[in-house]
Parts: sequence; C-alpha cells; structure tokens
Amino acid sequence: MTVTDTAPEELERVLAAAAQAAGPLAALRPAERARLLRAAADALDAAAGELVPIAIEESALPEGRLTGEVARSSGQLRLFADALEEGSYLEVILDSADPDAKPVPRPDLRRMLVPVGPVLVFAASNFPFAFSVPGGDTASALAAGSPVVVKAHPGHPRLSQRTGEVLAEALRAAGAPDGTFAVIHGMEAGTTALTDPRIKAGAFTGSVKGGLALLEIATRREEPIPFYGELGSLNPVFVTPAAIAARGTDIAAGYVGSFTLGTGQFCTKPGLLFLPEGHGLEERLVEAVRATAPAGMLNDRIREGHAHERDRLEGLGPLRTLVHGADGDAGVAPTLLATTAKELLADPDPILQECFGPTSIVVEYADGDEMLAAAEAFGGNLTATVQAEDSDAATLPALLDVLRDRAGRLVYNGWPTGVAVAHAMHHGGPFPATTASIHTSVGTTAIRRFLRPVCYQNTPQALLPEALRDDNPLGLPRRVDGVLS
Amino acid sequence: MTVTDTAPEELERVLAAAAQAAGPLAALRPAERARLLRAAADALDAAAGELVPIAIEESALPEGRLTGEVARSSGQLRLFADALEEGSYLEVILDSADPDAKPVPRPDLRRMLVPVGPVLVFAASNFPFAFSVPGGDTASALAAGSPVVVKAHPGHPRLSQRTGEVLAEALRAAGAPDGTFAVIHGMEAGTTALTDPRIKAGAFTGSVKGGLALLEIATRREEPIPFYGELGSLNPVFVTPAAIAARGTDIAAGYVGSFTLGTGQFCTKPGLLFLPEGHGLEERLVEAVRATAPAGMLNDRIREGHAHERDRLEGLGPLRTLVHGADGDAGVAPTLLATTAKELLADPDPILQECFGPTSIVVEYADGDEMLAAAEAFGGNLTATVQAEDSDAATLPALLDVLRDRAGRLVYNGWPTGVAVAHAMHHGGPFPATTASIHTSVGTTAIRRFLRPVCYQNTPQALLPEALRDDNPLGLPRRVDGVLS
Repeated sequence: MTVTDTAPEELERVLAAAAQAAGPLAALRPAERARLLRAAADALDAAAGELVPIAIEESALPEGRLTGEVARSSGQLRLFADALEEGSYLEVILDSADPDAKPVPRPDLRRMLVPVGPVLVFAASNFPFAFSVPGGDTASALAAGSPVVVKAHPGHPRLSQRTGEVLAEALRAAGAPDGTFAVIHGMEAGTTALTDPRIKAGAFTGSVKGGLALLEIATRREEPIPFYGELGSLNPVFVTPAAIAARGTDIAAGYVGSFTLGTGQFCTKPGLLFLPEGHGLEERLVEAVRATAPAGMLNDRIREGHAHERDRLEGLGPLRTLVHGADGDAGVAPTLLATTAKELLADPDPILQECFGPTSIVVEYADGDEMLAAAEAFGGNLTATVQAEDSDAATLPALLDVLRDRAGRLVYNGWPTGVAVAHAMHHGGPFPATTASIHTSVGTTAIRRFLRPVCYQNTPQALLPEALRDDNPLGLPRRVDGVLS
Repeated sequence: MTVTDTAPEELERVLAAAAQAAGPLAALRPAERARLLRAAADALDAAAGELVPIAIEESALPEGRLTGEVARSSGQLRLFADALEEGSYLEVILDSADPDAKPVPRPDLRRMLVPVGPVLVFAASNFPFAFSVPGGDTASALAAGSPVVVKAHPGHPRLSQRTGEVLAEALRAAGAPDGTFAVIHGMEAGTTALTDPRIKAGAFTGSVKGGLALLEIATRREEPIPFYGELGSLNPVFVTPAAIAARGTDIAAGYVGSFTLGTGQFCTKPGLLFLPEGHGLEERLVEAVRATAPAGMLNDRIREGHAHERDRLEGLGPLRTLVHGADGDAGVAPTLLATTAKELLADPDPILQECFGPTSIVVEYADGDEMLAAAEAFGGNLTATVQAEDSDAATLPALLDVLRDRAGRLVYNGWPTGVAVAHAMHHGGPFPATTASIHTSVGTTAIRRFLRPVCYQNTPQALLPEALRDDNPLGLPRRVDGVLS
C-alpha cells in the first residue's frame, strides 16, 4: 500500500462530510456517543495484531511499547466514554428567574456546553497511536461531539491510513453519522483544511516552529479558531543533597532510564538534571549511559534533527561531553553533557533549547539559592520534577512555587516520562510547552477544548435540550441556583 | 483634572508592580480574595455619588442607567466573591494511585487551577462601569487571583482614572498586595503592555477591527498569550406569524424599545427583526421609532461611526428607509430600515454588518423555509431571539438548532439587551461575536479565562496546596477518583 497526499477534491469531500456530520453527531445523547467511543476502542484493540507490525515498520519503535500504546489509546477512548455517561463535562448551570433581582429582574437562564464543530487534528510522530490517529485529541474531540479530521503524520502514513479505516468503519457500524471521522495526508491538505471555514478548531502535537506556524494560520484566517498546540519542553529535574545521600544510585539509574526511554523521543524527556556539587554520581551516570543500547529513531528527519542539536550543544563552550553517543547502524546511542548552574545562568538561552532525542545535560549547582535561580531561568514546560527527602521540607515550598509558575505538572520523586490518562492529569503548560496554557491535551478535561457554552433564556421546557430540562431526564450533575446537585 | 497618556517609565512601574503582586495574590486563600472583592464592591458603591456625575459628563448616558451600572458592577464583584467561597471554580480533581492500572501503574495525581498571572483589560466605551474599569473582566481576573492592569477607554478618561483610584485604594486598605490593580491610559501604553512578557492574558470589549488587531499582537508576541475579545454582534430576532397574531403590538413596542435603548449602544442591540409578510406592524413600528426622543451618543467618534454606517445601509439598493433619524443638537434620532429575506439572501454581506447605534432593519420573510434560510445566513452572534407561541412547537426546534450554532445566548419571548450577571449567563459566541468562543465575559464562569491547570504527581501532603490535601482544609467541592463530592 502506498499512501498519497489527499487530493483537493477528496479533501473537499472529507470537509463537506465532516460539516454534514456535525449536527447529527452533536444531537446524539452523551451515552450514545459513549457507545461510539467504546466501539472505536474495541475495534482498535481487535486490530492491534494487524496495526502494530505496520507501526514497528514505520516508526522503529519496539513491539511492547506499541502494544502498550494501543491499550493506552483504547483505554483513553473508554475513559472519555465514562466521562460522557457521568455527564458533568456538560457543565450544566441553571439559574431560576428572579423578578426581584437588583438592579434589574433576572430571567430564567440555563447554560450548557455544545460541540464547537469539526476539529482538525495534526498527529504527532512520536506516539504512532497515543498522540496520532486514535490519540487523545481525536478521543476528546469525538467525545465532545465534534467530527474529527486527522492530518496524518508523514512518519507513519500506512499506519495512519489503516488505523483511520479501522476507526471510521467501527464508528460507522456503531451508527455514527457519515463524516464523523476521516484521515487526510500531506501538509498542503492540512493547511488548506486549517483555513477552511468548516473547520472550527485545531489541535497539534509537534515542534515549536511548526506549532507557531499553524497557530498563525488559525488566528489569521477569516474566522479565527481556537488552536491547541503542544510544542516543546525541557522537563528539568532538581535533586537535593538529601536525595542524593539517600537514593543517589537509584536517581542516577532512574534519570538515565527516563531520558533514554523510547530513544529520548518523549515530549516529557528530562532534558536537564540539577545535582548538588560533589554529588559523586558522574561515574555511575556515565556507566549507565554507556550501558544503554543504541536504538533507532522514528525517522531520518528526526535523527538528523537530534544529531544537529546534540552537536550544537556539544560545541557550546560551557558544556562538557561526558558521553558522546554516536549514530550508527544499530541506531543512535545516548549522549550525556555536563555544565554548572553558574555557566547556565551566565547565558541560559543557548543551553535551554529542547534537543528531541537521547541527549541530556547534568547541571551542578553550588547551593539552594543557585538551584532556585536556575529554576527561575526556565520558561514554560510540560513538567518539572523534584527529587527530595522529608528533611528538605523547609526549602522545597519556594522551589515548588517557582516550578508551578513554569510547568503544567510537578512530579515528586518520580520521572516525567509517562503521562497517565486520568481525570486529574494535566498535560500542558505555559508557552512554549503549549500555545494554550489553560488547556490540557491528556486527561478527561481535554474535552473542554472542543466545547463552547450556550445559554437558553426563558425557553419553554419542550424546546430546551434534555440536559437543561427541569426533570433532568439525562440524570446529569448540575449547578442549580449556585448549588451543585 | 486632565488625564494624560501613561508615560513609559510609569508603565514600567505598573507592570513591574503587577508582576510582583502575582505571587502574593495567588497565594491568598479564595476566601481572602473574596474579602478583597467585597471591599472593592463596597468602595465602588460608596463612591457612586462622586463617580456617576463624572460618568454623565463623559458618556452622555443618563443618571439612572449609570447608577444601575454601578450596582451591577459591585453586585458582580460580590457574586465572584461568593464563587470564591464556594470553591468549585478551582476544579479540584484527585485521582488515587493505582499500581494495578493497565498498561502502566498510575501515580497519585492532583489537579487544580491556578492564576495565569497579570491580565491586561482593554475597557469598553459603552458601559463606563460594567464593561470598563470595575467591570466583568476586572472582576473575573481579580477573582482568579491575577493582578489587573486596565487600559482605560479614551471615551471616559477621568472616570476611569478616578474609579481606578477608588478600587486600588480599597484593595490596598483590605490588604491586597501592591500592584494588584492599576489603570493606564493611551493606546501606545496599551499595546506596549500587551507585548510585555509580564502580561499573561488580555481581555477586550470593542470593535471587530480593534479586537483583531490586538489578537494578532497577543498571538505574535514572543510568548503568545490567551486573548479574549468580545467584538461585534447583529443579534437577530425572529418572529413567527402566531406571535404576531397574539402579541404584535407588544412585539413592535418591545423591539423599538430594545434597539433604541441606550441610544442603540449595546453589543446586544437587535440589529434585524424578521417578520412574516403581511405582519401589519409597519405603521406601528414607524410611530414608535418616531416617538423615540433623540439622545446623545457616547462620543463624537461613535456618533460619526454610526452616521457613516447608517448612511451606507440607507444607500443600499435592497433597503428601504422607513424612518430616517437625523443627528441634531438634541442627539441622534433612531433609524428604521426595511427589506425582504429574498433581498437579504441574494446578497447578505452588505446588509449583515453591525451598525453600532440606534439603527435597525425589519426583514419580511415569505414562509418558514425562508426564515430558516435567513437564519442560516448569519455568522457568529452574542444572541439570537425568537418570538413565538406554543402553536409553533413543531417548527421551532429546527430554527433553534440553526441559531444555537450561531449564537451564545438564545432568548425566547424577550429582548437581547440586558445581560444578567449570573452563574448560567453566557456572554460570548462564535466569531465575530468573540475571538474565543469557548469562553464568556459575563457570569461566574468568566473566571475560567484567567486560570490554568496544574497537576501534582505523588507529592507529599505537606508540600501540596491546601486545596489538594487529603483533609480538604478549605472544604472545597472536589472530584475524587471520578466522583464529585
């Protein structure tokens, strides 16, 4: 199978069908859409045996990882199905009329969220399932009731095409309106779709440069639309002297495991590890990095991008190379660099750049003040991690405050790689982690990106959506006259 | 008192102070910030006797309206104080660790919302209190815990300055951090502030052109920030034959009262009234418009803008002038135009343009299909209104579906002017009603614009914010393992 770019007439058919599907899909009850998501999840699981081998071929990722990704993606669809059945995502709020309200009488007001309309998802390369065709953006937009058009990542075109067919067929068989889901290929088709008036929101996972270019298109089109880009992140890790004393060996192993996981191709890869001077872990870190087998990267463009950025970092005066990982037939070996917080603070910008791949930097700090100053040098991040002990209790709050201003998720005594799909997950953060820091791309609250409020004023019961009627036929959690019920 | 544009060194002082205030303001407990909002509300009420005369002088609006606006603004501050004390605005979600989760174990995750940081508010001209210095953007951003810098509208500079002093003093006296609130003047200061890295979000109420220009600045700055613009709206009203038969006289009077209210200077002014052919109300509408006294407009620029757009509409071939309202010494008299749905559908764009001021258009439709087609011709609006009777039940759902896709608030047998401050209010809508259709600028949910999520992973109790601790010391509503409690 060869996948070709989507031709203009095919793109027109896809967009017209998505626009046609928007009304009927929005009209389904939440529980009916939950059924569609479960059907898609079941079909994805059932097709794993066919899809995973294509993914291995196209991404160079190992089977275990990809099988896990399928389970994560189908589990995510099912979690959104649960959220639909629970119903609080609709944010129903009812305020009774109050003829005595001052300065003017208040009408009966009933608010709920409705789908924004067709969503264009730009798939990522590094998770061929979980952040691609059947990933979090797709799952949350479908859950919201928005038709989805996925612009496939060119790194895994056949997988994208085939996964799209599996999902579209499952949705169709489960009764979804025609046009609910489609996959398109090619950057030209993607940018054309992003400017099309029938597309009402965009979502993207990828580079800062790519995300900013798409954000500009989404903002400057005749009707600006919301655009949710998840871009770059350095994911710093701060280790206290007490943590080194208590768990130095484990920390060294954990760090190397985390930054080399998936050949460093995670947006949550720890890019810098801050250690106190005299940590005594250098030899152990070097050994652990040397012991990590080279592995293939997702594609040549990403391998070359990593090599270029790694070489740039190695060439910086303030950075020492502890281990240079070569690119060879067996893949890319990890690289470990080192510097001091003093050097970093003297000129942070050249060092604080994301290097996508298995390269990371150890930074030695002299004392707590210098660690805090280094933390303050960071911009927005998806995550920030602290490795500490109970005895650090007095100094940690200041560090956590600094990190909270700069990151979407604060990890304590863990590693940032691994993003659980859960209600409480936040996968986002201030720019450049995302272009829309008040939203997440993982977790059930990701659905909020594709819903807009509507308020019905003084509308008769028979004309209200079921969600807003007095008798609450859908059994939704609602806020009535200010009180949750 | 003469108000001059804010000089660069003063702007720098304001922005530095706002950045300084962000941490301490965010650290206050919600109930402590509620106290600040109540202090601001009390001070505003207490200063009404001084402020309203300045507002009359600068805006040409009548005393009763302005006194009502003060009450609305102070009431709004108190409603946000209530929302802070109730606490569900923090959207706290806790997920317990699950070592048996598939495909990977799940850590303990705790999510809440935190303030985005200093917010820049561009005040509107048409509500010198309610959408200006002490208005909804200010109230919701302060409630969120974000310092606020208001760029005053040049239409009421002295009122803005004095109101700002009253609020700043009240906040200071109540213990708010220095820099919590400030007013700046001049477009150059405003755009400079919007590009300043210390400003983390922008809000605006005004014209489509102005809003788009600011949106572009907010998006293209080095760190793109969320920008919430409330721009233009036509607010169509659709009247069924049954409603004409039952309440034609009242509808004519209500419509003229609504589109001439405040000299038509409401973003929710009904710009088009759709009536069935043979409605027989033309004479009555003409009489009611002629009986409406001329009134001053907010300022010369707005008066000239209205005259220009009114004259453009009058010059369009498909539009008949029923009443031409002149601009005279006594102010601007209302203008009523007429056309048919057929003419409108033949070339909608020249007609479907907002005319800010006391001008509106009556549109006759031949039948229900034509009314529906006309409804489909609209873009985004803040409101859409239906005047109907029980006997219309069979045909209304299709109309409401079309309008729901195009408007933020659906008004039934009422008039769109008048935006109640309430939990369930939605004052927003698809572009060009707003630049951010998933958010509102009025109602308690407006706070969501200035909050971003943060997730704490596996963090010890002592290091968690109070809102996320097991013992829930703030008594917040929370979602725990998927269940609201």
